[in-house]
Amino acid sequence: MFDFDQPHLRTNILTGEKVLVSPHRSARPWQGQVEAGQTETRPTYDSQCYLCPTNTRANGTQNPDYKNGFVFTNDFSALLPNPNAEGTFDNDLLQAETERGICKVIAFSPRHDLTLPEMEETDIAAIVDLWQEEFMMLKQTPWIHYIQIFENKGSIMGCSNPHPHGQIWAQQSIPVEIKKEGKQQLAHYQRTGRSLLQDYIAAEEKEQSRIIINNEHFLVVVPFWAIWPYETLVLSKRHCQHIGQFTDIEKLSLAHTLKELTTRYDNIFKTSFPYSAGMHQSPVNTEEMPEWHWHMHFYPPLLRSASVKKFMVGYEMLASPQRDITPEYAAKILQEQSTTHYKKS
Amino acid sequence: MFDFDQPHLRTNILTGEKVLVSPHRSARPWQGQVEAGQTETRPTYDSQCYLCPTNTRANGTQNPDYKNGFVFTNDFSALLPNPNAEGTFDNDLLQAETERGICKVIAFSPRHDLTLPEMEETDIAAIVDLWQEEFMMLKQTPWIHYIQIFENKGSIMGCSNPHPHGQIWAQQSIPVEIKKEGKQQLAHYQRTGRSLLQDYIAAEEKEQSRIIINNEHFLVVVPFWAIWPYETLVLSKRHCQHIGQFTDIEKLSLAHTLKELTTRYDNIFKTSFPYSAGMHQSPVNTEEMPEWHWHMHFYPPLLRSASVKKFMVGYEMLASPQRDITPEYAAKILQEQSTTHYKKS
Ligand SMILES: O=P(O)(O)O[C@H]1O[C@H](CO)[C@@H](O)[C@H](O)[C@H]1O
Ligand SMILES: O=P(O)(O)O[C@H]1O[C@H](CO)[C@@H](O)[C@H](O)[C@H]1O
Repeated sequence: MFDFDQPHLRTNILTGEKVLVSPHRSARPWQGQVEAGQTETRPTYDSQCYLCPTNTRANGTQNPDYKNGFVFTNDFSALLPNPNAEGTFDNDLLQAETERGICKVIAFSPRHDLTLPEMEETDIAAIVDLWQEEFMMLKQTPWIHYIQIFENKGSIMGCSNPHPHGQIWAQQSIPVEIKKEGKQQLAHYQRTGRSLLQDYIAAEEKEQSRIIINNEHFLVVVPFWAIWPYETLVLSKRHCQHIGQFTDIEKLSLAHTLKELTTRYDNIFKTSFPYSAGMHQSPVNTEEMPEWHWHMHFYPPLLRSASVKKFMVGYEMLASPQRDITPEYAAKILQEQSTTHYKKS
Repeated sequence: MFDFDQPHLRTNILTGEKVLVSPHRSARPWQGQVEAGQTETRPTYDSQCYLCPTNTRANGTQNPDYKNGFVFTNDFSALLPNPNAEGTFDNDLLQAETERGICKVIAFSPRHDLTLPEMEETDIAAIVDLWQEEFMMLKQTPWIHYIQIFENKGSIMGCSNPHPHGQIWAQQSIPVEIKKEGKQQLAHYQRTGRSLLQDYIAAEEKEQSRIIINNEHFLVVVPFWAIWPYETLVLSKRHCQHIGQFTDIEKLSLAHTLKELTTRYDNIFKTSFPYSAGMHQSPVNTEEMPEWHWHMHFYPPLLRSASVKKFMVGYEMLASPQRDITPEYAAKILQEQSTTHYKKS
């Protein structure tokens, strides 16, 4: 008998897409904001924060007195490694299957008051190292097939704690967005023998207009098809399938690139620019997928000011995404920003 | 030469999906809220509201002294009927095509202070009539292929004016969500000779647990695959392709059904329950699509209280939708609500 109290996937028969259901998770505590502005000044240490060094978390564990990043399993994980239930639920049009996974939290800094753009480049580099280490470690669990590394920044993006941190969700099945992207990349690879994104890098370098950052190892563009107002795409110049393949130089370069990009973001509205960002990379523990090309999406919601965002609502949910400014205009605004953070200039 | 300042679609080469770009629209005014709670008391008439009867709108037009609903072309339409530019932009991986359409606004009531659940059933029925009329009228434009009728309710859903109103966007191409749903419905229809949703109605009637409303003409369920916490699906019992086919009795019944559903919603948290809702129906002015079955989605964001919503952010945007309570639990909560509005009891 299928247990609907365990994390599981459900298939939408109208779209063919799946939703992950995590009933046990509704018990997690809420520290987040209630639809209000960002608070701009925070102490360097907050005794109530479950991410600050030496503090005790909800489950009684004490955080170490960490110096750079710190990783632990989410106390309120949406996925669990060994759900009691197994198998599938198949009742004709009602289809479900169990799902398992591991959810981790990664504090970016011991400092409660910082964010990525305000951190030192070397400290961001330590986080990139941690991402790579975690990726390689999680990959060793044979039933894990996809590892999603991401960050929700700002209360407007559902971040329930302002202490700088990201998350890693590793799971058994391949999520819908990854399947979609995999399919498209595979088709191009089979047709041309080349990476879709490698060819896209060439196209953007030819046009120039949407490029925000172009260094030896990474290209950052407002993609031609951006949905969010200031959406960007970070592409590795080398055709890597995943972060596990990055060299030391590439990791340092990614830290540099992320610092510059997030600094430009903060400077647009002189605010801590909210976003959800994350890497898309090849599934793991499955056949080789040479078509995959590592990249990172930044989905920031702000549109008009530090407090007015773009709403992806009625028409967007029911019909098609819709945006109000061109990607080229957004790129121009991002290009015009200083690479020095507004708080330091 | 393709004009990027006109509304157009762009294809995401990673997903194969399209985004509608409407550059001219960034000039529209903002009356909406800045991430704060809902204001609960409003006057019956507001001289600053562009939807109230007799008021003058941004373009200088004066609203009539209307008694039920009132429809007009959106002064800040995302789609225009005759964009100056035509044709497609095809630069290998950068693909775009022009798009045209008509965006209408439909005020639900002359009363500035009401919402659907607080309106009289007969007044809601007048709006259902208007939806049908508008649908039939827009369908007469031969280049229109899809008509999206929807409502964004509440500032949290990007609604920039609290006066009760909805929108209708009619356009030349068939939007991505409609294509997805059409594909799934067609596959089922070709395999079984039956409507997918007709079979789904039978499955839900057998299980009972997710049913909120079940009357002669409509079934309302929290769908098995709901993404939003209290998401519901309104299904016509009769296999109609679109609202144009509804009989007078069915229209009255829809008004009754919507009043009951939105009343139950408001009662959950004793608040004006925000949502985006809209009908999905067959494309028009194209070949017959007997597989299509009229239905209406309600996507409400609230999760824990009147002020804490579910955030569809990092993991959800990058990997897969994720929900925290089961659809069955949500159905139970909705079933327990009174059908009398909390303000009246
Ligand atoms: O895990 P957190 O930070 O508590 O929660 C946040 O990120 C999750 C993953 O994107 C989302 O499911 C939650 O809605 C959001 O509030
Ligand atoms: O048309 P409105 O009410 O100004 O705008 C609202 O609905 C539109 C259609 O869903 C969205 O594109 C906007 O982001 C939202 O704020």
